[in-house]
Amino acid sequence: MLAGSEDRTELEELGEFGLIDHLTKGLENVNSSTVKGVGDDAAVIDSGDKYTLVSTDMLIEGVHFDLMYAPMKHLGYKAVVVNFSDIYAMNGHPKQITVSLAISNRFSVEALDEFYAGVKLACELYKVDLVGGDTTSSLSGLCVSITAIGEVEKDKIVYRNGANENDLICVSGDLGAAYVGLQLLEREKQIFKENSNIQPDLEGMDYVLERQLKPEARKAVVEMLEKAEVLPTSMIDVSDGLASELLHIASHSNCGVAIYEDKLPIDPATVSGAENLGLDGTVAALNGGEDYELLFTIPQIHFETVRVMEGISIIGHINDRESGYNMISKGNSIIPLTAQGWDSFLSNN
Amino acid sequence: MLAGSEDRTELEELGEFGLIDHLTKGLENVNSSTVKGVGDDAAVIDSGDKYTLVSTDMLIEGVHFDLMYAPMKHLGYKAVVVNFSDIYAMNGHPKQITVSLAISNRFSVEALDEFYAGVKLACELYKVDLVGGDTTSSLSGLCVSITAIGEVEKDKIVYRNGANENDLICVSGDLGAAYVGLQLLEREKQIFKENSNIQPDLEGMDYVLERQLKPEARKAVVEMLEKAEVLPTSMIDVSDGLASELLHIASHSNCGVAIYEDKLPIDPATVSGAENLGLDGTVAALNGGEDYELLFTIPQIHFETVRVMEGISIIGHINDRESGYNMISKGNSIIPLTAQGWDSFLSNN
Repeated sequence: MLAGSEDRTELEELGEFGLIDHLTKGLENVNSSTVKGVGDDAAVIDSGDKYTLVSTDMLIEGVHFDLMYAPMKHLGYKAVVVNFSDIYAMNGHPKQITVSLAISNRFSVEALDEFYAGVKLACELYKVDLVGGDTTSSLSGLCVSITAIGEVEKDKIVYRNGANENDLICVSGDLGAAYVGLQLLEREKQIFKENSNIQPDLEGMDYVLERQLKPEARKAVVEMLEKAEVLPTSMIDVSDGLASELLHIASHSNCGVAIYEDKLPIDPATVSGAENLGLDGTVAALNGGEDYELLFTIPQIHFETVRVMEGISIIGHINDRESGYNMISKGNSIIPLTAQGWDSFLSNN
Repeated sequence: MLAGSEDRTELEELGEFGLIDHLTKGLENVNSSTVKGVGDDAAVIDSGDKYTLVSTDMLIEGVHFDLMYAPMKHLGYKAVVVNFSDIYAMNGHPKQITVSLAISNRFSVEALDEFYAGVKLACELYKVDLVGGDTTSSLSGLCVSITAIGEVEKDKIVYRNGANENDLICVSGDLGAAYVGLQLLEREKQIFKENSNIQPDLEGMDYVLERQLKPEARKAVVEMLEKAEVLPTSMIDVSDGLASELLHIASHSNCGVAIYEDKLPIDPATVSGAENLGLDGTVAALNGGEDYELLFTIPQIHFETVRVMEGISIIGHINDRESGYNMISKGNSIIPLTAQGWDSFLSNN
C-alpha cells in the first residue's frame, strides 16, 4: 500500500536536511505570536514580556543510541540535556520539559526508573521542571521524544543568522571527544560480540566516554556571556560537528567563514583516543558531532573580553560570502569546509 | 543487560496510568513559571500576560494506528488534531505545533508528503503554525511525536479539578462512533487477510469511519462557550472513553458523578454500526474512546443557556464523593462506572 505508489522517491535521495527543507518549504505562519518557526535551534514564540523557546528531539534505539553500552540513566540524562543545549543556543534558559516514551515489554519498570532517574537528575542540575509527556508501548525498541521549553528576554535572543563580516568565531569547551568516545565504544562492542571473554580495553578513556555517554549543556557559557555583557551576533550548538554548524551560521547569515586548525580546541584525551583508533583529531572535531558546545560569533569589540574567558576559544572569523567556507590548516593550506554532519538516513542503509 | 536486573517488574503490572503515576510521583517544580505540570490535558506555564499550554502525544505504528486502513494524509491530520483537542480541553487555543517523525526506509518521500499534507491541512483549518520538529530514521515502522503549544487568558483556564457538587455534566457532539469505526475497519482487515478477493463491506458506514480516521477537535465548542460567557468548572477531552474521563474529573475534583444512559448522545449510525458488530452502543460510548469531544461541568445557573446550545448534551450531574460514580440505565438501575480506558500496555500483550 505504501510501497505501491507510482512515483517513489527514496528518503536517502534527499538526506536529513534536504528532507526537512522539502517537508517545510512554503510554510507560512498565521499567528502573530509565531516569531520564528522552522530553521533555528528552537522555535520562538512571543508570549508578551519574553520569548518562549521550544525545541524538540526524537531518539530511536539502534539509530541514536545502543543499549549495549548506554546505561538507561545516562540515556535519560543525555536525552534531556541535548534539548537544553538547543535552548542555550538561542541564548535562553530551559524551564520546562516534556518526556514521551514508547517502550516494548522487553523493558522492566526498573529500567524505566533508571531512565527517569537520569531525566530527573538533569532537571535538578539545570533547574528545569518535568511537566508532561506520554508513555506508551512500542512493538520493539525504545523511542524517546523530548520537548524543551525555555525563555529569553526579547533583546537577548540570538539566532543563527546575525553573523557579520569580521565577527570573531568562538566555541566553548573542546571538540571531537564525544565522537571518539562513540568509536571506541563501537570497537569494543564488536570485539565483545566476537569473543565475550575479552574485557573491554577502555583504560584512560574516561573523558571521551563521558563526553559521549553523559554530555552537558553549556548553561555556564550563556551565563558568563551575559555577565560580561557580550551578546553574540549568532549562535548554534554543536550537535552535528563543527563544520556542519559553521555552514549553518554562514548560510543563514549569508557570509563566509575562515577558521584556523591550530586554534581548534581538542582535548589531549581526544587526540590520543583518535590516534588509538587511527583517526585524525581535527577530523573528529570538524565532523564528529555530539559535542553540545556552543559555537557563536561576536563583534571584534569584545575581543579582549572573550580572549581571557575560561573555556572559550576564538577559532576564526566571519568573511564575506565570496570567500567561502575555509579552514586554514596547520601547514597553512586552505581547506574548504564541507558539512559531513550526521545523516541518519544515510547511516542506516 | 536490560533484562538481567534482579528485580523485574513488568510494565503491564502497573498499566498506563499506574506507570505514569509511578514515574512522576514526587516531582516538584522549581520554576515559578510552572503553574501546572503532569496531571491535566496540558502543562500550564505562566508567560506573563497569559498562560502557555503544552501538550504532547506519541503515536506508534502497529499500536496506535494501522497503515492497512489509515491513509497517511488522514494520519497526519489526526495526529495533529488530537493534540489540539488537549489544548481546547484547557479552554485554550492551539497556536503552534512541532511534529517529529521517525521513519524507516520502507517509506517514500511521497508517503511523507501525504502525511505532511494532512498536518498542514489541520494547521490551516485550525489556524495553527507548524514551527518545528525532528525527522529521523527508524529501524522499522513509523513513530510520530507531536507537541502542541497554546494559550489561554489566565482567568479563563479550566482544569480537571474544579467540578462542584450539583454542577451539570455536559458533553459535545456524540460518542462511540470512532470506536465502532475502528472495529469495522479491524473486521474488514481480518476478512481481507483471509480472502483478498472479498471487497470491504463498509457501505453506509461513512460517519463512523470518518470519526475514526479523521476526527476533529472542538474549537467551535470553546468559542461558543466563551461567546455565551459560560466558563466550565472542569473540562477534559474524551480520548479514552466517557467513563474514564468522568472518573478523571471526579477524582481530580474529589466528587461523585451521576449520568443518565438515555441522555448519552449516540449517533444512529453508531448504533447501527454497533449492532452490525454485535456491540452495544452505550458500551461503545462509555468505553470506546477517540471521540475527541469535550466533557465539561457547569454551574446550574447556566442550565438555560447550555440546554439550547447546538451540539451540547447535558448528561448528568456532579454528586458528593460518597455517592460514587454511577450511570442510571434506561431501565432505571444504577450501574457503577469503571474506567476501561485504553491501556496500550495491556492491549499489546
